Amino acid sequence: MKKQVSLIIEAHWVLPVVPSASLLEHHAIVVNAAKIVDICPMTEVHSHYQASEVIKLNKHIVMPGLINLHAHAAMSLMRGLADGVALQPWLQKHIWPAESKLVSPDFVYDGTLLAAAEMLSGGVTTFNDMYFFPASAAESTIKMGMRANLGLVVIEFPTQYASDADSYIKKGLDVRDQYREQPLVSFSFAPHAPYTVSDETFQRIATLSNQINIGIHTHLHETKEELSQSYEVHGLRPLSRLTNLDILGPNVTFAHCVHMNEVEMRLLAEHGCNVAHCPSSNLKLASGIAPISQYIQHNINVGLGTDGAASNNRLDIFTEMRLAALLAKAESGDATALPAQTAIEMATINGAKALGLDDKIGSIEVGKRADLIAVSFSDIEMQPCFDPVSHLVYVAGREHVSHTWVDGELRYHKPAESAAVYSGIEPRELTAIVSKWQSKVSEFK
Amino acid sequence: MKKQVSLIIEAHWVLPVVPSASLLEHHAIVVNAAKIVDICPMTEVHSHYQASEVIKLNKHIVMPGLINLHAHAAMSLMRGLADGVALQPWLQKHIWPAESKLVSPDFVYDGTLLAAAEMLSGGVTTFNDMYFFPASAAESTIKMGMRANLGLVVIEFPTQYASDADSYIKKGLDVRDQYREQPLVSFSFAPHAPYTVSDETFQRIATLSNQINIGIHTHLHETKEELSQSYEVHGLRPLSRLTNLDILGPNVTFAHCVHMNEVEMRLLAEHGCNVAHCPSSNLKLASGIAPISQYIQHNINVGLGTDGAASNNRLDIFTEMRLAALLAKAESGDATALPAQTAIEMATINGAKALGLDDKIGSIEVGKRADLIAVSFSDIEMQPCFDPVSHLVYVAGREHVSHTWVDGELRYHKPAESAAVYSGIEPRELTAIVSKWQSKVSEFK
Repeated sequence: MKKQVSLIIEAHWVLPVVPSASLLEHHAIVVNAAKIVDICPMTEVHSHYQASEVIKLNKHIVMPGLINLHAHAAMSLMRGLADGVALQPWLQKHIWPAESKLVSPDFVYDGTLLAAAEMLSGGVTTFNDMYFFPASAAESTIKMGMRANLGLVVIEFPTQYASDADSYIKKGLDVRDQYREQPLVSFSFAPHAPYTVSDETFQRIATLSNQINIGIHTHLHETKEELSQSYEVHGLRPLSRLTNLDILGPNVTFAHCVHMNEVEMRLLAEHGCNVAHCPSSNLKLASGIAPISQYIQHNINVGLGTDGAASNNRLDIFTEMRLAALLAKAESGDATALPAQTAIEMATINGAKALGLDDKIGSIEVGKRADLIAVSFSDIEMQPCFDPVSHLVYVAGREHVSHTWVDGELRYHKPAESAAVYSGIEPRELTAIVSKWQSKVSEFK
Repeated sequence: MKKQVSLIIEAHWVLPVVPSASLLEHHAIVVNAAKIVDICPMTEVHSHYQASEVIKLNKHIVMPGLINLHAHAAMSLMRGLADGVALQPWLQKHIWPAESKLVSPDFVYDGTLLAAAEMLSGGVTTFNDMYFFPASAAESTIKMGMRANLGLVVIEFPTQYASDADSYIKKGLDVRDQYREQPLVSFSFAPHAPYTVSDETFQRIATLSNQINIGIHTHLHETKEELSQSYEVHGLRPLSRLTNLDILGPNVTFAHCVHMNEVEMRLLAEHGCNVAHCPSSNLKLASGIAPISQYIQHNINVGLGTDGAASNNRLDIFTEMRLAALLAKAESGDATALPAQTAIEMATINGAKALGLDDKIGSIEVGKRADLIAVSFSDIEMQPCFDPVSHLVYVAGREHVSHTWVDGELRYHKPAESAAVYSGIEPRELTAIVSKWQSKVSEFK
């Protein structure tokens, strides 16, 4: 007898991400009660399952939803507010004044809605956020049906959200209690950065984090100025200071990590800390290029983040995958560094590990939540294709995402488009050209 | 009495590029007989002109068509053929063997059609090509209604196209004669690179280039290996060698220029040479990051190129604009380096100058050819917007290009799409959110 399930997705390719080198052709993903219950050949699926809905994706790859490991979602409302400005003046003259005047529950709710829409349409199913009024962010996330790990932000100076470190922490813990039963939402402490949070507050967060078992998300070693300023004030580089304050551990995600010496890399590896690599933001603010190929050699878990839309200005993990893969090659001088499969792992399973959610998300495995995306390979700029995994990183853009599911629910889709119109040629002629050459060229792979 | 014209394009914004800081609001571009005949406020245009066609673009910026200053268009058929491989093995084990077996007039015709379609849909109206069988590339270009400067390729080893330097040159000159009357097609000599072309051949090309007044397009200083190998063989770095061979001049475009010392930069500036910056390709093949901010300080004219689709793998000048702007900031340590306006100039007027076509294309000015593109700002990921020029570089992608005109003819357009579907929100609610905050946030610009 056939088993009744909610959804069958049939795809030309399925990229499970775990196990690492696997790429399945003509497979189906079977979803029921928000979870993946089977992955099997398309030819077999209908003899075992009866689904309420069947989606056929003949020209698509289905892969795990992307995880944005460092975001300030509500800053979408400040997209491109002050471009071409360095980090400190950018913060001090534009972002912080705007935030001190405008940031409110309403701003965070609206901004997170906008960001969630942008991220869902770009294949992001989970974001790791750090912003004021996390309860408002939670409401938006739930409304959009997206998954989020929300930061309980802590900073020493007063804002409209809270007055001092104690009140930030207290408000954060209250929000966590309030949303405890929400399956899409989880929380980390988010002390803003070593230069805005005191030793005492970091220590308190370390203690609380252990007691109630939640992670920590903070900015670290983003700019050279941060390092020299820390040395002046504390006589230590920020990572040494955080080590002394007992912050390091496998539930800690450090955003940026642009500047890190060999000893520090070993420290990150030993403590199992996670890095949220934000290549666009680091370039745009002239912070530098993080030594990701060395992090990988040290077995440090690296995920990908967009940072906020004021410093990127796209909440687009496809762009970050491509940029991470390309930069690692130039930075290491090795064109084989950070291959496409690794870039995709960074954007999926590595992000899940950093958030302690790798039992639920980050790969297409039986028993995991059905956070899935489909990427269409039918547009002319995606053809020909000799390696679909490589195409996802070097060719595809977020605009090729056609479907985004979270917990097995379709949260975004793009209706089938009318074909592009060229005065000189019919698109079907272009497709015929590609078919004619594809197999001939592939002999030289 | 009203003047009869062929086309009026009314746009929310017009970015003429020349003069540099100008951005016109609610203006119209008047086109007749392939040329721009007027640029005036929308409110005035219909009292002066009667057009066969009027296109209203309320949510768009209209700007000059983009110029891809370094392409191997037909390699689109080898898109992503061998990713994650360094330049020399990539050439020697994959690309050259594939080319020696497959490249033919048919291959070049088909590959150039595919590339032209991709480029037109990404807002590229002109490409500077270097490949075998340029007559076939010319046929494709003309069929697609695109503009191209085609390289008359010269290389010392035999291919299916030609047997030795003499025959490459002779065939090239014949092609040039054959297409002399074609308004969309022009030609340069394209000696492949210093490491594949002899002194004698370079000298002959220098002489011919002077005699018949056509430009030169070659690869230069792409990798460190190229420099050390040249030093071993010739006792000179390639640029010194080319200087001695009288190649340098304002009609020369050097592709890549990743490695260049201070003396060499001054040499490029003195001779008015042009650089085709190919940031994606240089990263992907681990060649390095070209010192573009220094080139700009030296007043060297820098345009942007995609290189071929086997090493990029997108023929996408939007991606190259963004990457060039971002890399220059990190490479120089200055977040104000290479502002958005400069990136756009690189992709338009600078490319035109390099090709000696700046009397015809590269900006929206009366008397120039109507090579124009429209970029839509209506998608949710493009909002809010505080600076449309900055948005073009840091936010927009080629997928936002809605119309591409060459010589005033519509060569590509994307039919209006059905809106994205979110389960959690209606797109018009997102638009309302943006409207609510746009003016409040813009106070902090």
